Amino acid sequence: MSIKIIDKHGNVEEVDYNENINVARHSASHILAEAIKKLYPEAKLAIGPAIDNGFYYDFDNISIKQEDLKKIENIMKNIIAQNKEVRSYVLSKKEAIEKMKDEPYKLEMINDLGDDTEISFFENDNFFDMCVGPHVLRAKDIGVVKLLSVTGAYWKGSEKNKMLTRIYGTCFETEKDLQEYLDAQEEALKRDHNKLGRELELFTTVDYIGQGLPILMPKGARIVQLLQRFVEDEEQKRGYLLTKTPFMAKSDLYKISGHWYHYRDSMFILGDPENEENQDVFALRPMTCPFQFMSYKFKQRSYRELPFKYNETSTLFRNEESGEMHGLIRLRQFTISEGHLVVRPDQLEEEVKGCIDLATYMLKVLGLYEDVSFRFSKWDPNNKEKYIGDEKDWEVSQAALKGILDHLNINYVEAEGEAAFYGPKLDIQCKNVWGKEDTLITIQVDFELAKKFDMTYVDSDGEKKTPVIIHRTSIGCYERTLALLIEKYAGAFPLWIAPVQAKILTISDAHADYAYEVMNKLNSLGFRVEVDDRSEKIGYKIREARLQKIPYMLVVGDKEVQNNELSVKSRTGEDKGTMDIDTLISMFSKEITDATNIN
Amino acid sequence: MSIKIIDKHGNVEEVDYNENINVARHSASHILAEAIKKLYPEAKLAIGPAIDNGFYYDFDNISIKQEDLKKIENIMKNIIAQNKEVRSYVLSKKEAIEKMKDEPYKLEMINDLGDDTEISFFENDNFFDMCVGPHVLRAKDIGVVKLLSVTGAYWKGSEKNKMLTRIYGTCFETEKDLQEYLDAQEEALKRDHNKLGRELELFTTVDYIGQGLPILMPKGARIVQLLQRFVEDEEQKRGYLLTKTPFMAKSDLYKISGHWYHYRDSMFILGDPENEENQDVFALRPMTCPFQFMSYKFKQRSYRELPFKYNETSTLFRNEESGEMHGLIRLRQFTISEGHLVVRPDQLEEEVKGCIDLATYMLKVLGLYEDVSFRFSKWDPNNKEKYIGDEKDWEVSQAALKGILDHLNINYVEAEGEAAFYGPKLDIQCKNVWGKEDTLITIQVDFELAKKFDMTYVDSDGEKKTPVIIHRTSIGCYERTLALLIEKYAGAFPLWIAPVQAKILTISDAHADYAYEVMNKLNSLGFRVEVDDRSEKIGYKIREARLQKIPYMLVVGDKEVQNNELSVKSRTGEDKGTMDIDTLISMFSKEITDATNIN
Repeated sequence: MSIKIIDKHGNVEEVDYNENINVARHSASHILAEAIKKLYPEAKLAIGPAIDNGFYYDFDNISIKQEDLKKIENIMKNIIAQNKEVRSYVLSKKEAIEKMKDEPYKLEMINDLGDDTEISFFENDNFFDMCVGPHVLRAKDIGVVKLLSVTGAYWKGSEKNKMLTRIYGTCFETEKDLQEYLDAQEEALKRDHNKLGRELELFTTVDYIGQGLPILMPKGARIVQLLQRFVEDEEQKRGYLLTKTPFMAKSDLYKISGHWYHYRDSMFILGDPENEENQDVFALRPMTCPFQFMSYKFKQRSYRELPFKYNETSTLFRNEESGEMHGLIRLRQFTISEGHLVVRPDQLEEEVKGCIDLATYMLKVLGLYEDVSFRFSKWDPNNKEKYIGDEKDWEVSQAALKGILDHLNINYVEAEGEAAFYGPKLDIQCKNVWGKEDTLITIQVDFELAKKFDMTYVDSDGEKKTPVIIHRTSIGCYERTLALLIEKYAGAFPLWIAPVQAKILTISDAHADYAYEVMNKLNSLGFRVEVDDRSEKIGYKIREARLQKIPYMLVVGDKEVQNNELSVKSRTGEDKGTMDIDTLISMFSKEITDATNIN
Repeated sequence: MSIKIIDKHGNVEEVDYNENINVARHSASHILAEAIKKLYPEAKLAIGPAIDNGFYYDFDNISIKQEDLKKIENIMKNIIAQNKEVRSYVLSKKEAIEKMKDEPYKLEMINDLGDDTEISFFENDNFFDMCVGPHVLRAKDIGVVKLLSVTGAYWKGSEKNKMLTRIYGTCFETEKDLQEYLDAQEEALKRDHNKLGRELELFTTVDYIGQGLPILMPKGARIVQLLQRFVEDEEQKRGYLLTKTPFMAKSDLYKISGHWYHYRDSMFILGDPENEENQDVFALRPMTCPFQFMSYKFKQRSYRELPFKYNETSTLFRNEESGEMHGLIRLRQFTISEGHLVVRPDQLEEEVKGCIDLATYMLKVLGLYEDVSFRFSKWDPNNKEKYIGDEKDWEVSQAALKGILDHLNINYVEAEGEAAFYGPKLDIQCKNVWGKEDTLITIQVDFELAKKFDMTYVDSDGEKKTPVIIHRTSIGCYERTLALLIEKYAGAFPLWIAPVQAKILTISDAHADYAYEVMNKLNSLGFRVEVDDRSEKIGYKIREARLQKIPYMLVVGDKEVQNNELSVKSRTGEDKGTMDIDTLISMFSKEITDATNIN
């Protein structure tokens, strides 16, 4: 629908609702504040912005519970129904201070502004608030409003400040749009790895260990083990050489690589950097590159030997801020399928292509290929001190990577300022259930670090030359991949990575021996099978196994024991009928082989 | 032979040479100092003790090269041939200072002694030295002397002090004993993992990364990968549950476990422990125990579910002193097959037995079983502050472990003061080629930590009880195991862990296509095969592959290509004749399967 919006100078414009939904949501936050002031006149106002998918407002001096939200929402709806027109005006700093004299948080914000600043206000009925606007002109143009939750939030996001009361809400053009959003949220919550991953006992976190340091429990660790072996084996087939290098080094290493000057804030330091003269200072590694280079530098290499393709299941450490950590997605420590290719310039395109091919294969096997997008990440020429190499170097490396991507017909978006400090990247981006985008896989072209580490090869003309480095991941960070897989499959993992592939369910105690015999046979062949021989009804056992998202349930009763068979049901409810153990093994083996046979 | 030795009071005793070889070696160090003073009168004396397998003496103010040693040794032999008798006497501190007035290092040592100390001297001919003795009475009783090497060494072992000149030597009763020792040293040096492991390109170290932080290059990393998978698979078969837990935690965790109070000096700390109020302090983990416990503590456990057997391929960090690091044996970071069993008291013996059985199996598969010894490591009752738990706790836990070991007929030695701070251990000890003993595998019984972490299970009577913890490794530290395997097999690894299992050697360029076809077929089946298609003589290629200790060489020429066969030679020189690829695959598969089929 078409709505009217008003800016801080009183200009009115007619616009499309959905293209300006953030204006509607921000306006809704003012209506929320107005409703709160009606119900709780003692409340003090902090801030109320629009955010992704909605809005919030922070208040002090009130106590609100989830069950109060309906009442507040009803007041908001009454205010909206009156459909008053908003007016805007501008005051001097002095006038604004006078107008807001009873609102300490507003006063703090005003005092942070320059003395000559004009401060705009928006006023609806008898409620007014400082605001740069714009707002919807008439309250009904906000659409359908809904309050969602109440939580605590520190003033200005800092633990040092007072904890305020934050109320979240949203609004949409129609009831139908709102309901679709709420349904999608409910579905997302069901798949949210941070919730489902714990329910399925894949991982946990513990306060006294710390944020961003998840504990992978047996089922989660098994999935990562299976993925790791799959990746290492595939890379071995493609000519990669495995390394295993240390997780820390003296600061001397990072001074050569440049990490000490361009990345130190994100690194964990061991020892006192101010006191390097008297003791070694170490740092946990944020990347594997310089460590793998040492394997190359072990002896003089010849042009005939290149490319060297090193891979490592590598653990990295990033000193993230507390607020940035999230589930298995953003961590202080993570394990990554990291590789570095040392190539001749004439091999660069072929090898970048090989990296993209490997990443594509991995994504297809995991079922994530349809969900990713490609981003060509460039440097920020207005922020040169963040990078090593000069403008010309960057022109060359960016042109090289762009040329390759265009030649390979990769469909990418460009992003300035997202390059690594040593070179441009192709990032393969994924979104979690809440729509938040992160990098899953990265392929980077680097003309700089080989120079810094004095890496050379003897070319066909007998001269020492500097190779080009490709930094790449093939599946990315295992923890993040696990999170995406949990959300993609809502915990119902494909058979080849399911931590428990089948559960044998006994109908009575008499069938337990046979059940364990079958289990031992399957497990000795490398399958992952458990027995449920509890004295529970078979229907109950089946329901429980399905809740655990176990791919197959193998029921054994008198008939199965007698005929040396199994009655096979899938977690989707499909009855596969009765079969002998060899048929089951063939069925499982085919399903597992098919999963990684992707073209 | 029988020799006479003299103590600092002049008492003479007749003793056996070999039982007192350290006295002979220490006496030889005085003869070395006497010889040095004859050749280099300006030399200043520091110290000259007997050590394992020989002796050394440290000097200042001289410059000696390896080629000078023969001349010095000849002077020593002349002195010994004169066979003068040694005399000993005791002086007051004041007299000693006067006597040693030209020897600044001796003066420093004298000044460190109490004023009333009597200081003994031993004098041979016209050479005298401060010494607590005893010495051999007559020089010929030193036996056959040999100088070995010259190196630098800091005064008192501290980098802050001056670098002195250290001369190493040894002596034996007979020429034959000396030669046997020198031959054994030569053999040990050939097998020394710290030398051979680098020559075979298994690992390297880099100054600017740091000591105790080796880089496993592709061949070394491949062996560790194979061992790791073998261990994880065997443990899975035995009912272990894999975990993957973080390498760091807040200090809060270590305060609960007690590591913060009993182990902090060996830990790497991130952040400032003096400033814990304002920021989180983390530490890299020296052990996995409390991390794996979190998986157990995820929910309430029942007596029916116990034992829980957790395993993890776990990386640990120890802040070792620079001087303690050695090759792959003593490291700042290492990876270990670490596990924790949470058991009911009535399950303890059975589960300890299971751990010993697993360790024994691993050692037999690796071929190391004959080389290890067992050590029952107890607490030190005179040093109680090093441990948690009181005397009664330790009596109970030590009696429990001792009872189990005796019941299982384990042949062990007892070692006081070698327990973990939380409980007694069975340590499986190994020696490197130089005879230095280290712990390879450990099995520990712990009645303490489950209490500290409030770990419980609901027993059959409905009461919450505290379980017992077994801490154990099954193959130990992978780096250390790799070091022992290098030394055991002198780099000629068994086929199942050989990083390269076979090399296909072409007789001419015409055979290269066939060679690569065979290689691809074998590698696609998971074997590790390379091709050498250089234009070198076949004899040269075979010699080079044997130097690299590659198990099999597969020679291909006209006849082999024509008949679709391979001519197979082993690294021991055995000619296995000509066979087709399927026969080769069967031969390899059997050799690999047999290696892990140990009873």
